This record gives sequence, structure tokens and C-alpha cells, in this order.
Amino acid sequence: MARPTPLSGFPEWLPDGRIVEQHVLDTLRRVFELHGFGGIETRAVEPLDQLLRKGETSKEVYVLRRLQEEAGDADAAGRGDKQLGLHFDLTVPFARYVLENAGHLAFPFKRYQIQKVWRGERPQDGRFREFTQADIDVVGAGELPYHYEVELPLVMAEALGALRDIGVPEVRVLVNNRRVAEGFYRGLGIDAVDEVLRQIDKLDKVGPEKVAALLVSEAGTTPEQAQACLALAGISGSDTGVVDRVRALAAEHGVESELLETGLAELGALVEAASVRAPGAVVADLKIARGLDYYTGSVYETVLVGHEQLGSICSGGRYDTLASDGANTYPGVGLSIGVSRLVSRLLSAGLVRATRSVPSAVVVAVTSEETREQSDAVATALRSRGIPVEVAPAAAKFGKQIRYADRRGIPFVWFPGRVDEDGARTPDQVKDIRSGEQVDADATTWEPPAEDLLPRVVPAGG
Amino acid sequence: MARPTPLSGFPEWLPDGRIVEQHVLDTLRRVFELHGFGGIETRAVEPLDQLLRKGETSKEVYVLRRLQEEAGDADAAGRGDKQLGLHFDLTVPFARYVLENAGHLAFPFKRYQIQKVWRGERPQDGRFREFTQADIDVVGAGELPYHYEVELPLVMAEALGALRDIGVPEVRVLVNNRRVAEGFYRGLGIDAVDEVLRQIDKLDKVGPEKVAALLVSEAGTTPEQAQACLALAGISGSDTGVVDRVRALAAEHGVESELLETGLAELGALVEAASVRAPGAVVADLKIARGLDYYTGSVYETVLVGHEQLGSICSGGRYDTLASDGANTYPGVGLSIGVSRLVSRLLSAGLVRATRSVPSAVVVAVTSEETREQSDAVATALRSRGIPVEVAPAAAKFGKQIRYADRRGIPFVWFPGRVDEDGARTPDQVKDIRSGEQVDADATTWEPPAEDLLPRVVPAGG
Repeated sequence: MARPTPLSGFPEWLPDGRIVEQHVLDTLRRVFELHGFGGIETRAVEPLDQLLRKGETSKEVYVLRRLQEEAGDADAAGRGDKQLGLHFDLTVPFARYVLENAGHLAFPFKRYQIQKVWRGERPQDGRFREFTQADIDVVGAGELPYHYEVELPLVMAEALGALRDIGVPEVRVLVNNRRVAEGFYRGLGIDAVDEVLRQIDKLDKVGPEKVAALLVSEAGTTPEQAQACLALAGISGSDTGVVDRVRALAAEHGVESELLETGLAELGALVEAASVRAPGAVVADLKIARGLDYYTGSVYETVLVGHEQLGSICSGGRYDTLASDGANTYPGVGLSIGVSRLVSRLLSAGLVRATRSVPSAVVVAVTSEETREQSDAVATALRSRGIPVEVAPAAAKFGKQIRYADRRGIPFVWFPGRVDEDGARTPDQVKDIRSGEQVDADATTWEPPAEDLLPRVVPAGG
Repeated sequence: MARPTPLSGFPEWLPDGRIVEQHVLDTLRRVFELHGFGGIETRAVEPLDQLLRKGETSKEVYVLRRLQEEAGDADAAGRGDKQLGLHFDLTVPFARYVLENAGHLAFPFKRYQIQKVWRGERPQDGRFREFTQADIDVVGAGELPYHYEVELPLVMAEALGALRDIGVPEVRVLVNNRRVAEGFYRGLGIDAVDEVLRQIDKLDKVGPEKVAALLVSEAGTTPEQAQACLALAGISGSDTGVVDRVRALAAEHGVESELLETGLAELGALVEAASVRAPGAVVADLKIARGLDYYTGSVYETVLVGHEQLGSICSGGRYDTLASDGANTYPGVGLSIGVSRLVSRLLSAGLVRATRSVPSAVVVAVTSEETREQSDAVATALRSRGIPVEVAPAAAKFGKQIRYADRRGIPFVWFPGRVDEDGARTPDQVKDIRSGEQVDADATTWEPPAEDLLPRVVPAGG
């Protein structure tokens, strides 16, 4: 078999990269659980008709077929097996999970979900076909109070903030409120709200002049309306002064709208609460548009400060109808982190590193294959106190056994004492191979320094 | 949208079931890491030609196609994209990972891998189309010492043994050595070794009489050879007496074989080491056959004592050629746990339960929406000391807020003190809703009892 080459769009990490990714996932999970979010997993597949309900993503779906399946065979047709596709996000499967299990869930239901998703698109720079997402959502049965729209972005800000220790840059959550935009546009006399938002969404890419022209040509606005939309999109700030500026702009254009007022009250409450609970982490940014056929209230994007060109690494919003059955409609609010993109960036930019590539803190040397049992016993004693240990692969010269540890970044090598003819055993010794210091040690009591116990993930300079 | 129904073969758990599964996964990971195994993940897909190298599994593969893909389109043909399928185990992708990254890995390379796998077969009772496997393997470059064949099943026995606290039954690792069987068969004058093993593998299903007939009709043995094969398969035991019995049987049939002697020395060493390090956990069982076109030394199966009818929940063995490129051959030894099958059994048999369905140990009550900020501050103080907390969804009557906690199994409800007109605040109180006991508490110092901090997984009777 020739040496295989990577598949474009399907990222994999070497063991030390996986330590970084695992640390990110463990950190996110810990913060989500501290806030009471329970973990669930859903199957990787959904019936194709469910995946295609959002028309725009249909081109991205990977469809499954059994290798031996034949057109019209009993399994695919007669027994009514549905065509299956891999999920392309965690929202569609979550909506299905909520409907399927509604009778067994307690609402409001807070869940996190960390799983792979797949998109069958052509891989481009930074575009993955398989990647890990980490989502949090709160879903109510029938109703969901506004305060969750404040809480959720703050949980995400805290989760991402918990990664600053390892060198993840500061994050900034950019928030907007769909009601503000829609209320303002309608107040201006614009009906094609979705189309305006689609054009506004291009601001960072094509600039205000092009967007102004597109608003006229594509959304049918007047040049004056277009300028007002751009003026709204230009407003941002991290205090309630933002609300005042939007009100002033509305007054200037004679806009009066209940919807706008509702949205501004919500946006103001969010910015105010955030300034108390996570100062500087949340900024109101009126140009944030998102795919707004879906969201109905707050919308969120998140950038790494100083790496804004990466785009949003964590997005989401409020939706009034996550799912609906005969009995209930389920409104929710949630955000999703693109973990693979984040980890890929941390690794490729050399921002973080693992202190070693294996869990082991200690290699127990083997004096001879006949006394391997003695080394195994040392390893067992150390492990019983939570210290990750491996035993050397062969009773080679100690220099070679030390190199085995060194190559993996394992800081300590343990030398079992020698047993003489009378059965007396000289003391065991442990060597810190970084400093060369070697001391007597007892496997039932010795501990490595806390910072050496497990591989740590640290800023690459550290 | 009508209420969706589960897809047969694609298991999903409710939140409390997921807590059980997560506990199992965390426990396995902890034990693997204590033994120095590093975690990796591989992509879910492999090129179809790689997946089909093992002919017998080909019928089980799920093949992917992009929804918009057309026969002969530029993407599939012109640009040379390979056809992709979902992996059906973690061994094929691991072999490819080793070859692809050999230059960046340190050998012997010890890794664990916990991921979903997919098999496109018709679901039957207990057969999943999507399930989680947890694998450990050690792979050498060119060579791999025998002692890893002793170590690996003991790591698995320890990992599964660490689950006994939560009600997982005792496990027994059944071991055999392919060299023993092959040496014995060849010594008898049988050449069709693989065919004999295939028939012996049916012993538990169809019984010895049927197998004797099949050995004659399918493997071309004489009735006497068939009886000798059955006699070998009938030997089992947890000490080196097993080796003596095999030797006696060989002598009885005039079998002399170097391969047999090598195999017996290895099997004896494994049983002996196991009796020291994990008494009772490992039993030599000469009827264990496995898919032996692949394994070349030790083979393993693992049963839950008292639930043997479930079949093997953890299997594996030694293989001389995991993979091979121009420069090196990579021998290895590994085992794989079927986690979904284990968890499914634990849940459906009611053997284990989670003490609650959410992470939260505390619900902070909300006196009025105007003072929600005060409840948020209490939650923040508790979380800063690692206590999972949520704030009540609405400022409902306290009875309703207590029911919110009760329905989720959350043990404590926190009542922020009331602030009077002068700004003085009565002490906060915390209520254990199981006992009804309510005491003054300070959010900067209070802690729940250790056993209430996180949801625990316990035997269902506990």
C-alpha cells in the first residue's frame, strides 16, 4: 500500500494537535455544564426530506446509499426505508430530537451538542467538508422568555473566554436584533426586508457603495432609503448609547414603528446586562444580518479580536419556530461554535501548543525483560494515584529508554531499584530528564509537580 | 411537522441516558490515558477502495454521494475525486492514519480512538447501523514485542472493571493464540486452517455435533481430526494448567509443532501475568477463533459474567501487518469495545441510572423579573467555584420554581435575600428540596455535598 495522502476538506490532527482540540472541547463542555446545559448526541443521519427543508443548503448534503443497494430493491422501496443524508448542522437534528422526545423532556430544555457535521461542498481555503460544531440552545414549549437571548451569548463569551489561557485571542460577540432592522426598514416604507438584509450582509465584502447600488437594483429601494439602511448598519457600540443613536436616525427619517421599539428595548437590555456580566465582550453592531429567514429576534456573530478577517467563529440567534407539531410550537435561542475552524487556526497560526504529545508523565525503565514485572508493579502503583505512566517497550540501554521518553516529551523516567541476591532492593530513583536531576523515590508516595501531571495546552510562546 | 419516529438501528439517548454514556466514555478515556494511550480521531470517511480491501465487510458499507452530483460530472471524474464511504470500524482508518503520518509518529505508537462507526446492514435485534467504538492499539514500526499482547487485554479489563461501581457486571477476557490452533491443526495434518477456525467459531451457536459434521463436510477433515479439533476447543482455564492440557492432547494425537510450542509459551505467559495483575479477569479459552485471516497471535473476546448470551462486548488481537508501505511493516495489537451495545444493554436492562438528568446542582430562584440580576449574580458566584447552576426561567411562585428543580432532579433551590428600602439585604437561603431543610447561605462560600455536585451514575438499585 502506497503512502496515502490527506483528503481535502477532511481535517485530522496529529496526537499533539488532538490534545489541543480535546482541551478546547473539554473546556467548552465544562462551561456549558456549569450553566446547566445537558449534553445530547443525535445520530449522524436524517431523512433526506428533512434535510432539504432549508432549500439553500440542499446542494451541500451527502446522501448515503448501501453499497449493495439496488434501485427498487426490497429494502429501499418495499420496506419503505427513507433516503438518508448526513446532517450538515446540529440544528435540524436537534429540532427533530425535540419533537420526537417532547414527552420526555423538561422545558425550557437547555442542551449542548458537540458533534461532527458534513457538507458535501467543494473544499476551498478554510472550508471543511467534515467539521466539529459545539452548539448550545434553550428551547421552550410554546414560549421562551427574552432573558435567554441575553444569557446565551454570555455563556458562549465565557466559554471562549476560558480559552484565553491557552492563547485564544479575545472574543467579541456582535449582536443585533432582527426586529430593529425590520421595524426600521418597514418604517422607511421598504417591504423587501429579507432582500435588504441579504445585501447588507455583503457590507464587509463589497463595501458601502456597492451595497447602496445593490439595494436599489436588487431590493428596489430608493437611493434615499438605501442611504438610511446603510446609516443604520453603520451604528455600533457597547452601551445603550447605541439605542439612542438608532432612535435619532429613525426620527431623522420619520420612522415610527412598534416593532423597532420592541427590538430596541431588547437590544438595550442585552447590551446593558452584558456590560455588567461580561464588560467589553458584547458589542451591538447593527450591520449583523445573518440568514434572517430563520431568526426572529437577537442575532449573534463572534469574532476573534485582531483576527476579524477569519470571519465569525460562533453565530446564532433567536428563532420563534425551531419546530412545531400539532400540540406545540418550540421557540428557541442558540449559538454554534465552529470548533474545527478555530482549532485549525490555532494550530496553523502556531498560537498554541501541547506540552507533550502523550498523556504519560513517567516512563518506567525496564532493567531486563526478566524483571519487567517489577516495572509493571511500579507503573500500577503510580497509576493508582492518577499518574499516567507507561513502561518502556524494551530492556534497552537506559540511554535509549530515556530517548524514548524525550521523543514524546515525557518529563520523568523511573528506574526501579536493583534486587540483590538476598532479595534486598536498592531504592527506586526518578529522573527529571529536562534538568537531569535524579532522586530516590517511592512509587507509593511520589508525585510529579502538578503542572507535569497531564499534558497541558499553553500559548505557543509559553 | 408530524412527530418523527426513531430510525431503526440508529440509537439515541435521552439526556439521562447520555449522562450514563458520557460517564462510560470518560471512564474509558481516563484509564486509557493512565496507561499512556494518546487520543486521536480520524475522519468519518475513507476511499471506498480502502474500505473494500476486507472483502467480507463490503456489503455493509455506506457510500456517500453529493446530492447534486451527476454521473461523470467534473467533480467526480475530471478532478479525480475518489468515491468515499463511511468507516465501518476504527482499524482501517487507523492503519491509513499510521501510514499517512508515519514520519510524525513515535513508535511503538499507543493510541485510543473513540468514535462512531457505520454499517449499512439491515438492523436486527441489537444490531446497530451507527454505533460508538472505543479502541486501543499499540503499533510498532517493523517489530512489536510480545509483552504488549499481555498488556492490552489487561488495560481493557481495568477500563471495564472501572465501570463496576456503576453496576456494569464483572468482565472476563477470553484469550486464545492463533499459533496454538494453527500449530495443532497443521500437526494433525490439516491444511485448511482458516476453514477449521470458521467452523470452530460456530461452536456456541450450533454445538459440537454440528461443528464436527461441518469440519468433515466443509473443511475436509477426517472424523478423527474433527474430534481432536473439538477436544482442543474444549480446553479452558485461568492458569498455566491449560498449557499442560494442550500439550497432553497434542502428545495423545502425535502432534509435534514448533508453531504450537511458540503459541503455548505466549499463551502461558499471558495467563501467568494476568493472574498476578488482574486475578480472575483473564481466562484462556481455546475455542476463541475470531476472524483469523487477520490476526496472527493472541486473540481476545470479552464477556460480561452472567450476561454471556450478549456475546463479546470487546474483542481484538495481534496482527503482524496492520499496514505496510515501502519502508516498513507495522505490526500491532489492539482491542475494541462496542460502547453503544454496552450502554444500550445497561439502560434497557435497567442496570444503571443517572442521579439527575441535568448538570445543575442548584436552581437560583427569581423573586421578580426586576431583580433577576441579583439571581444571576448568585449563579455567577457559585459557578466561579465549579458548581453547576441555572437560574429559574421565570419569576413564578416559589412552589413552581421548586417544581422546576424537582422535575429535573436538581437537589437545591437558592433564594436570594430580599433587599429592603434602606438597601439592607436579608440573608440568602438554600433549600435541599429532598429533605425540605432550608438554611442561611452565602454564595461566595456555600458548597453542596460532594456527591451532589455533579450528576452521578449509579447502579439502578442505588
